[in-house]
Amino acid sequence: MLKKISIIGGDFRLVSLAKMLEEEGVEIYTYGMEKIENKYGISCTSLEEAISKSEIIVAPIPLTSNGETINAPFSENQILVKDIIEKVDGKTFIAGAIRQDAYKMMEGKNIQVIDMLKREELAVLNAIATAEGAIKIAIEETMKTIHGSNILILGFGRIGKVLSNMLKGMGANVSCEARKNADLAWIKAYGYNPVPLEKLNENLENKDIIINTIPYVVLDESNLNKVNKDTLIIDLASNPGGVDRQAVKKQKLKFVWALSIPGKIAPITSAEYIKDTLYNVVEEL
Amino acid sequence: MLKKISIIGGDFRLVSLAKMLEEEGVEIYTYGMEKIENKYGISCTSLEEAISKSEIIVAPIPLTSNGETINAPFSENQILVKDIIEKVDGKTFIAGAIRQDAYKMMEGKNIQVIDMLKREELAVLNAIATAEGAIKIAIEETMKTIHGSNILILGFGRIGKVLSNMLKGMGANVSCEARKNADLAWIKAYGYNPVPLEKLNENLENKDIIINTIPYVVLDESNLNKVNKDTLIIDLASNPGGVDRQAVKKQKLKFVWALSIPGKIAPITSAEYIKDTLYNVVEEL
Amino acid sequence: MLKKISIIGGDFRLVSLAKMLEEEGVEIYTYGMEKIENKYGISCTSLEEAISKSEIIVAPIPLTSNGETINAPFSENQILVKDIIEKVDGKTFIAGAIRQDAYKMMEGKNIQVIDMLKREELAVLNAIATAEGAIKIAIEETMKTIHGSNILILGFGRIGKVLSNMLKGMGANVSCEARKNADLAWIKAYGYNPVPLEKLNENLENKDIIINTIPYVVLDESNLNKVNKDTLIIDLASNPGGVDRQAVKKQKLKFVWALSIPGKIAPITSAEYIKDTLYNVVEEL
Amino acid sequence: MLKKISIIGGDFRLVSLAKMLEEEGVEIYTYGMEKIENKYGISCTSLEEAISKSEIIVAPIPLTSNGETINAPFSENQILVKDIIEKVDGKTFIAGAIRQDAYKMMEGKNIQVIDMLKREELAVLNAIATAEGAIKIAIEETMKTIHGSNILILGFGRIGKVLSNMLKGMGANVSCEARKNADLAWIKAYGYNPVPLEKLNENLENKDIIINTIPYVVLDESNLNKVNKDTLIIDLASNPGGVDRQAVKKQKLKFVWALSIPGKIAPITSAEYIKDTLYNVVEEL
Repeated sequence: MLKKISIIGGDFRLVSLAKMLEEEGVEIYTYGMEKIENKYGISCTSLEEAISKSEIIVAPIPLTSNGETINAPFSENQILVKDIIEKVDGKTFIAGAIRQDAYKMMEGKNIQVIDMLKREELAVLNAIATAEGAIKIAIEETMKTIHGSNILILGFGRIGKVLSNMLKGMGANVSCEARKNADLAWIKAYGYNPVPLEKLNENLENKDIIINTIPYVVLDESNLNKVNKDTLIIDLASNPGGVDRQAVKKQKLKFVWALSIPGKIAPITSAEYIKDTLYNVVEEL
Repeated sequence: MLKKISIIGGDFRLVSLAKMLEEEGVEIYTYGMEKIENKYGISCTSLEEAISKSEIIVAPIPLTSNGETINAPFSENQILVKDIIEKVDGKTFIAGAIRQDAYKMMEGKNIQVIDMLKREELAVLNAIATAEGAIKIAIEETMKTIHGSNILILGFGRIGKVLSNMLKGMGANVSCEARKNADLAWIKAYGYNPVPLEKLNENLENKDIIINTIPYVVLDESNLNKVNKDTLIIDLASNPGGVDRQAVKKQKLKFVWALSIPGKIAPITSAEYIKDTLYNVVEEL
Repeated sequence: MLKKISIIGGDFRLVSLAKMLEEEGVEIYTYGMEKIENKYGISCTSLEEAISKSEIIVAPIPLTSNGETINAPFSENQILVKDIIEKVDGKTFIAGAIRQDAYKMMEGKNIQVIDMLKREELAVLNAIATAEGAIKIAIEETMKTIHGSNILILGFGRIGKVLSNMLKGMGANVSCEARKNADLAWIKAYGYNPVPLEKLNENLENKDIIINTIPYVVLDESNLNKVNKDTLIIDLASNPGGVDRQAVKKQKLKFVWALSIPGKIAPITSAEYIKDTLYNVVEEL
Repeated sequence: MLKKISIIGGDFRLVSLAKMLEEEGVEIYTYGMEKIENKYGISCTSLEEAISKSEIIVAPIPLTSNGETINAPFSENQILVKDIIEKVDGKTFIAGAIRQDAYKMMEGKNIQVIDMLKREELAVLNAIATAEGAIKIAIEETMKTIHGSNILILGFGRIGKVLSNMLKGMGANVSCEARKNADLAWIKAYGYNPVPLEKLNENLENKDIIINTIPYVVLDESNLNKVNKDTLIIDLASNPGGVDRQAVKKQKLKFVWALSIPGKIAPITSAEYIKDTLYNVVEEL
C-alpha cells in the first residue's frame, strides 16, 4: 500500500499525478512545481526536505533533457540530477529514461531504481495516447477523412497494434507491415491487410497515409521513391526515426515527425497510466 | 451518363470535384476558380460561356453566404446569384443551401433545381467528415485520451450515429441521448449506453466530453448546471445550435462550436461524396 | 408504474417475463403455464380469475398459431382466443401478431389493444437475437470461419443493420445490398461494401454466405444461377421469404430458412426485450 | 517455391489442402485418402510410391491418436507411424503433435522434421476458428444473446485475444483475466475489463459465460463456488483443461469442454491456414 510519496519536478503529468494520489488518500510532498497555481500535497521548501519526507521519490519522466538538470517546467529553480541522486540513498527512486551516467552516479549507493519507461505496462498504455496523437495529425494534415483512407502502418509492436485497432474502428482500410510470420498472422487475425517486409516496396503506392513505428530507417530512398506525392508520412519512432529525412526533403514528400505525444496530448490520462504503474511498482517492492 | 458539366465558383471541394470528374472522362468547364494553380477542365472567360457549354451547372455548396454573391474564394470576380439564375434557364442547376429568395428568382423559368444539401445520401456521407472533425477537437481540447473517456452524444440522427460508431471504435465509453424508444433500442443494439431525454439531467455529470447534434437548445441553463467544469462541450448543430451560449459563458464551461466541418477538414473526401451524389442525381434525371 | 399484471399462456419468454417482473416487485398472476416447475407469481385456477386480477393482460407473442387457441406450450388446457377476448373488456390487452379476426372480435368492446410485434423498439431488439441465430447457422453450416468470409446481406433494414455490424465485428468481409441511395450511403459509412439492387446479379459470385432479410423474392432463378454451389444461403425473412425455393432445390444449393429465432435461441434476453417494451407501453398509456 | 508435395492420410483439412495446392499449380501425390470421392492430385497405390514422388511429405495434424497408426479417416488401410518414418529418410517430414517416441524413431536418420502445431503463425490462425467454435457453443448453450452478456475469459494468450475481440465485436461485455501487468494493460487498451488473477475470485459472480483458455486448473472448487448456477462454463484448454471437472459435477454447473475445434468447425479455412504455414516453412528451408 502506498501511503507517502515525494514528487520532484516534472511536467503537468506529475502535477496531475500529485492531485490524483492525494485524492486517493496518499500523503504527497512536492518540490519543483511551485509555479502551479492549484498546489496538491505539501509543497516543500527544499529538495532535501521533500526527499526526506518519504521512502518513494518520483522524479520526471523523462528525468532530464540536457543531462544536467531535471525536467521541471513548473519550477523557478534548476534542480540538478546529481543533487537528487545524492539524496535518495536508501530509498526507492522512480523516474523515466534514466541515462547511463545517472546510473553510474548511483553506483555504490543503496538505491532501488525504477525506470518507468522500461515498464511494459506503461509502454502499452502510452501507446494509446500516442495513437490518438497520430490520429489528430492524420485528420489535420490530410484533405481526406480517415474513414475510407488506405493507411499503412510500419511495425506491429505496441503502437502499431493500438493504432491499427483505432484506425480500423474509425473506418480506415488498414495495412500493417511486419517481418515475422507470427505477427503477420496476428495482423490477419485482427482484420488488417498483412504486408511482409519483403513486399513493402510494392505496397507503398496508393496509400493515403503511412505511419512508421519502427526505430530504424525502413523508409529509405528506394522505398520513398514509391510513395505518392500526396501521401502523408507520419513518423512516431524516436531518434533516429524510421524515415530517411534527407530523401523526404529531396522528394518533397509530406512528412510529420511526432515525438513524446502522450504528455502533450493527454497529460491527465498519462498521469493515470503513471499512477497505475506506480501502484504495480510499489506492490512488487 | 454524365458527359459534360460546368462548375461555377466554389471552394476546394468544387476544385477537387473538377479534377476527379475530368479524370473519369467528363468534359469540364469552369468559371470562377481562376486563382487555382493547377486548373482542371477548360477555364471559361465568362459566366455566360461556362453555362452555355453544358446542360448541368454546378454552383457552390452552400451557394452564397451573403445572399448576393456566390461563394467563390478562388475567383477574382464577384459572381452574382441573380446572374447565374438568369442564365441557367432550361438547364439543371445544382447547388447547396439554396435560399428562399433564390427560388423566387427561378419562378417562371424552366430550371431543374437540385439542392445537394437536401440529398439524404450526401448528408449521411458528410456526417463522416463531421465526426472526424469532432474527434480532432476532442483530442486537441482535452487533456485526456478519447479511449476510456465518458462521452455523451446528444441526438441520434446522422451525425450521432456515425460519431458514436467512431468513438466506440477508438475505445470511448459512449452514451447517446434520444427521445424515441426505437432510437434508444438502436443505441442499445449498437452497444452504447442509452440515455432517454427525460433522464438527460441526471446523466450529465462525470462526462469528459458532451457533443451536441440537435438543432435546438437542449443544453439549457438548468442542464448546464449539472455539467462538470472540466467537461468539454462541442456543439455540431447549425445555428442556433443546441447549447445556451450565455449560460456556458456565465458558468465558464469549456465550449467549442464547430460548423461546416466537411469542407474544412476533408475537402477531397467531401468532393468524392459530392461526386457520388451528383452521379445519383444525374441518373435520376 | 407497473404494479400488477396478468400473464396468460406463452412460451419460455413469458415464463421468464413473469420471473423478471416479480423480481422487480410487480404482482404477477398467471394462467396457462402450470407445467413449469418453478412458478413465478400467483398461479390462478381459471382464465377468468387471472384476468380479473389486473388491468393489464399479457397474452402470447405470437398470440396464436392455429387461429383458435393461444400458444401455451406449458399449459395442459387449450385456451381459446375468443375466451380471452371476451374477458378483457375494459382492460389493456397485450399480445403479438394479433390477427384480423381477433381484432374483429374486439369490435364494440372497450379494449386497449397493443400488438407487441408492431412496436418498433421490440423489432429492433429482436434483430439482435435473430442476428446471433444467423451467426450460429453460418458457423455450423459452412466449413469456413466467418472471419475472412465474403458475406452478402440482402436488405438493410433492422436485421440487416444489426447482422452486418456483428459479422464485421467477427472479421467477415461484409457486403450489403440496398435499393435506396441513402441506405447505400449508410452501408458505406458503417464500413461495409455497398451493393445497389441493380448490381446484385454481378455481386453474387464468390460469396461464401448470402443472408436474405427482404420479405419478398429477391433471389429468383436468374439470381440463383449466379450463386456458387458452395455458397450457404440463409433466409431470415418470414413467409414467403426472399428466396425462390424451387430454384434452390433444382440447382442443389445449400439453403437454410430460419424463422422465429429470438424465442428459440435467446428466450431470456427476448423476455428482457419484451419487459423493456412493456414498460414503455405502460408509460405511454 | 513449392512444386511437388506428397500428402499421407489426414482428415478433411488435408483433403482440402490437396485441392487448394493443386489449384495453385503444385503437383500433388496422395496416399491414404482414397475414400474421398473427388480426388485431388495423383492417388498413389502404396505409401512407398507416394513418399518417393516428392521431397516434402505432409502427414496428419495431429499425426496419430493411438501412437501406432496415423490419423487417416479417409483410408481403408491402417498406416503405421513407424512405416512413414522409415521411408522419409533424406526428406522433409511435416506433421502435427509429433510425439517423443516418433522423434526417437527418427534419430540417426536424415529427416528435416517440422511440427506444424508448434508453428506460432498456425497457432494464431487456429485461434480464429477456435474462437468461432466457442461462440457457436455460447449461442447454443445459453438462453441469452451474446450481445449484452457478461463474459469472462480466463487467459490472454492467442485464443483469449482473438475471442475477446470477436465477442466485443458482437456486443458482449467482455472481461479478461491475466496475471501479468503488461497483459492487463493490453486488456485495457483493447477495451475489455481487466481482471488480475488475484481478484479472479471476486469477479466470477454475475457472469453469463466464463471461457477458460489456460492449460491448468484455474477454476478450482473454491473459485467454482462463486460461479452462478446459470453461468455457462466453456473450457477450450487441452488436457487436463482449466476446470476442476469433479467440482463442476458436484455443483451441477453448466459445462462444455470443447477440443480440436478448428478441424471440426472450419476444415476449409483450417486447410488455408495450414497451406499458408506450409509456404512459410518451405520458404525457410
